[in-house]
Amino acid sequence: MNKEKMAAPSSHACSALERSIRQRVPPLLTDLYQFTMAYAYWRAGRHNEPAVFELFFRDNPFSGGFSLFSGLHDCLLFLRSFRFTEEDVAYLQSVLPPATDPAFFHFLRGLDCSEVTLCSVPEGTVVFARVPLIEISGPLAVVQLLETSLLCLVNFASLVCSNAARFRLAAGPKKKLLEMGLRRAQGPDGGLTASRYAHIGGFDMTSNVQAGFLFGVPMAGTMAHSYVTSFSSLEEVWPQTLVAANGDQDPIDLISLTKGWLGRLCELLGAEPGKIREGELAAFVSYAIAYPHNFLPVIDSYSVSCSGLLNFCSVALSLCELGYQPLGTRLDSGDLCRQSVEVRRIFRLCAEHFSLPAFHSLIIVGTNNVSELSMTELNKKENEIDVVGVGTHLVTCTRQPSLGCVYKLVEVKGSPKMKFSEDPEKSTVPGRKAVYRLLDDDGHPFLDMLCLAEEPAPKAGVAVRCHPLGRDKTCQSVTAAQVTQLRLDVFVCGQITEPVCSIVETREKVQSSIRTLHPRHKRLQEPDLYTVAVSEKLHNLMAVIRKGSVNDSNFLLAN
Amino acid sequence: MNKEKMAAPSSHACSALERSIRQRVPPLLTDLYQFTMAYAYWRAGRHNEPAVFELFFRDNPFSGGFSLFSGLHDCLLFLRSFRFTEEDVAYLQSVLPPATDPAFFHFLRGLDCSEVTLCSVPEGTVVFARVPLIEISGPLAVVQLLETSLLCLVNFASLVCSNAARFRLAAGPKKKLLEMGLRRAQGPDGGLTASRYAHIGGFDMTSNVQAGFLFGVPMAGTMAHSYVTSFSSLEEVWPQTLVAANGDQDPIDLISLTKGWLGRLCELLGAEPGKIREGELAAFVSYAIAYPHNFLPVIDSYSVSCSGLLNFCSVALSLCELGYQPLGTRLDSGDLCRQSVEVRRIFRLCAEHFSLPAFHSLIIVGTNNVSELSMTELNKKENEIDVVGVGTHLVTCTRQPSLGCVYKLVEVKGSPKMKFSEDPEKSTVPGRKAVYRLLDDDGHPFLDMLCLAEEPAPKAGVAVRCHPLGRDKTCQSVTAAQVTQLRLDVFVCGQITEPVCSIVETREKVQSSIRTLHPRHKRLQEPDLYTVAVSEKLHNLMAVIRKGSVNDSNFLLAN
Repeated sequence: MNKEKMAAPSSHACSALERSIRQRVPPLLTDLYQFTMAYAYWRAGRHNEPAVFELFFRDNPFSGGFSLFSGLHDCLLFLRSFRFTEEDVAYLQSVLPPATDPAFFHFLRGLDCSEVTLCSVPEGTVVFARVPLIEISGPLAVVQLLETSLLCLVNFASLVCSNAARFRLAAGPKKKLLEMGLRRAQGPDGGLTASRYAHIGGFDMTSNVQAGFLFGVPMAGTMAHSYVTSFSSLEEVWPQTLVAANGDQDPIDLISLTKGWLGRLCELLGAEPGKIREGELAAFVSYAIAYPHNFLPVIDSYSVSCSGLLNFCSVALSLCELGYQPLGTRLDSGDLCRQSVEVRRIFRLCAEHFSLPAFHSLIIVGTNNVSELSMTELNKKENEIDVVGVGTHLVTCTRQPSLGCVYKLVEVKGSPKMKFSEDPEKSTVPGRKAVYRLLDDDGHPFLDMLCLAEEPAPKAGVAVRCHPLGRDKTCQSVTAAQVTQLRLDVFVCGQITEPVCSIVETREKVQSSIRTLHPRHKRLQEPDLYTVAVSEKLHNLMAVIRKGSVNDSNFLLAN
Repeated sequence: MNKEKMAAPSSHACSALERSIRQRVPPLLTDLYQFTMAYAYWRAGRHNEPAVFELFFRDNPFSGGFSLFSGLHDCLLFLRSFRFTEEDVAYLQSVLPPATDPAFFHFLRGLDCSEVTLCSVPEGTVVFARVPLIEISGPLAVVQLLETSLLCLVNFASLVCSNAARFRLAAGPKKKLLEMGLRRAQGPDGGLTASRYAHIGGFDMTSNVQAGFLFGVPMAGTMAHSYVTSFSSLEEVWPQTLVAANGDQDPIDLISLTKGWLGRLCELLGAEPGKIREGELAAFVSYAIAYPHNFLPVIDSYSVSCSGLLNFCSVALSLCELGYQPLGTRLDSGDLCRQSVEVRRIFRLCAEHFSLPAFHSLIIVGTNNVSELSMTELNKKENEIDVVGVGTHLVTCTRQPSLGCVYKLVEVKGSPKMKFSEDPEKSTVPGRKAVYRLLDDDGHPFLDMLCLAEEPAPKAGVAVRCHPLGRDKTCQSVTAAQVTQLRLDVFVCGQITEPVCSIVETREKVQSSIRTLHPRHKRLQEPDLYTVAVSEKLHNLMAVIRKGSVNDSNFLLAN
């Protein structure tokens, strides 16, 4: 593992990021029905009616008590550059029904987000099921067309960020966490998105170079088993010499030096030289010559205790003798905890026996199909692992590989809209809203309240009646010590209006937002349910709309 | 749902596809350690040593009996255009350790795949765990650098294709299957890749327009609930008239016509007019006027039986009266089977009562969080669903969201390479190989055999000894009725050497490959394990290498 490469995103990163969004989310990356609906709105002359959609999810992911909201930055870049090319329009013309009026395609050519406004929870905030995270308002046909892309950008980003935050909670604050899942990700961009949002969610480093290039995520990585097994004998090592770190000696033959250390080590530990793999030693020596400041080999290609650990220590002892600080080792199979304890014991023995304090600061990296559960167990068991690498379970979110964000119409031309559906939990909450977060005396949030936009905000210290959403629907009276507005305008009439946070700021925002949570809500197993409620007025509006059918039911007789 | 849009990929599709690969899989989209290893090889003068890697997975996905190999086409386009830009190299120079010799970056600037050769299973073939699907040979540093990208391109493509094939098996051959998961996918490209390989795996259509544009996948889609709920009253319908299909009449007021049918329908069915949603009827009428040939609304925005079905039938009856053929309805919540039976009953009643045979050919589309399990159950229960839409469970492969393909070094400079690891199942099979598929008398494959490349192929009708991989390792003697070579050269020295199949051909290849499988291997639950074995010679080679450490263990004393 190299030292963390906290490189700033490349010089062209901002434009590269916007270009990357154009490439990854072209305006045709959406569902066909968005276009058929847009046409039907346009045909009926309704395409410019002011409409409001909301984006939310119905259940917290991973059976957890919270989620983290992410993906907003990408949404904003997407909206800012949302425009159809001539090629896009020509393709749409070839696939929409022949009955489509050609003038509609002229409308598409001129369409952009200059009349669209977004009111959103800030990126990296702790959020809960059923809270509208983004409110999107603008011309009906335009905001309809944005649905699939916005969902796609928020769903996976928020899911991975939440997953990473859970891994961080499971690992505790001290261990360094390395994301290394690109090869197992759901497509190239599944990997890139995961690297980015895993870092925001609490991981320290990634193996993914493109994530470093585009987003400035610190990177790490030294060698795979293939590097080790590619060597058969010490004869393949070339050059065989290394100059001491202070540079003031002649080059030293590192093979001879290492062999000497290996002999002493075998004696000290009573190890069998016959079981040591020469090819593995050759790989380590060769790598140390290439990168004497970055020596961190993988030591389980053959056998950790019979070969890898001995080879590592002998090369590391040689490096120390030449004034270099070896970094440590990686374990990639077997029982990581047990092995790390044994490896650490040998490191300490070497440090003392050979009077080399450098061996006290060697790090041990563990990578072997780590899941949230095994991370939790690892944290409970005795182990000496300093850095945990996580791949598949992090980047593909195996426990729940999708966050079910939806995008629902709540208002058209000032009139509230509501869907009932055959499944009660798929009903929507109508109307344009304000969202408040209520905090208790200790500063912990305890309830998010959805009010109608025109209602006054709940006041600190004043009891207010509300109706929790979900199963338990009995009316409550609650008093907050503090009330905050959860969302703010981030995109107004085509312009990004809030400064976009850097990845470092958003990452810090995630941790500070999680810190405010009461432990009962951030428990990984069986957390207490956080309450999301609607105001009395909004509750009444829902009842009125449900009854609505009866009131305006005479249309059959009218006219 | 529109009729299937079997549009050819857009005129620029081929170049667009290659461009899309360059954008989705830039050469920096890889793990950092590929570069540190490449440098160490280069520093030791080993970068041009001829090396061979293999790509394979260790377990069939979804606890199934087989997988489908996909992603090759993308791999080939990736290899053909694999080159670092000046910007890439400058970035690498800024993040690799300062000790890196600047001449290495000159080497990277000139690097391409002109000396790389791929021998691969054809795209769309049924494959099994532990069979090397692709053999990649070329200069050591170059083929090392390709690891992560090739894995990323094959892993998810093969996983989704296999998942889609299982959904197809669960659904039976008759139902049409629609993929509609973009919004829940793991990032934008997770959705695009899923749309493409779900079609190859057996789905008929996608909702994803970009998948139609880039790959020519047939598309479908008409309307969401938002379209329905955006209407409140019939006054919003404009224009209100429709010209008959044969065009030889004056425009007809579709609202009046529909109201008339709705009245008769309520009478026929004894329905309560008071429960019918006017806004829903307005949405249906408006859509029918926009797309009279493509009328397929979603009917559960409020209540299927009390409102949606009645509104649908009345508009559909009007369309029939004007000479149009309505397409059908979509159900998106509740018990799809039960509702579809009820909807069909009403369709039949209308067809008979109003003497409208068109009502016999209406289709019913069901979409409600369908999984492989619910698809299997749906196939067993009485239902009248013609088209099933599948989203989340298909595109994110919820049952197992990652296929664990790995990329292992098997030969350098003609010498076989093997990793042992602390986990026995992570051991690799060394050496360059030929892979044969053995078929029984009925043409069913029953065993895949890995032989050393230089061995003669097993002969039909001649018994041959082999050693199954995996747990049951007893030696077997097998006789095949037919022997085929599983892989062929597809990329030789930088050139694609086999004609690349179209999506239609690959899709057909998948189905024909699955048809050859014995039912005991393609059973979705608890299938019989397919045998993958190594030849006697390969088995012996593995034993020799395992013992190898002892033989060349005198290196400590040598020199």
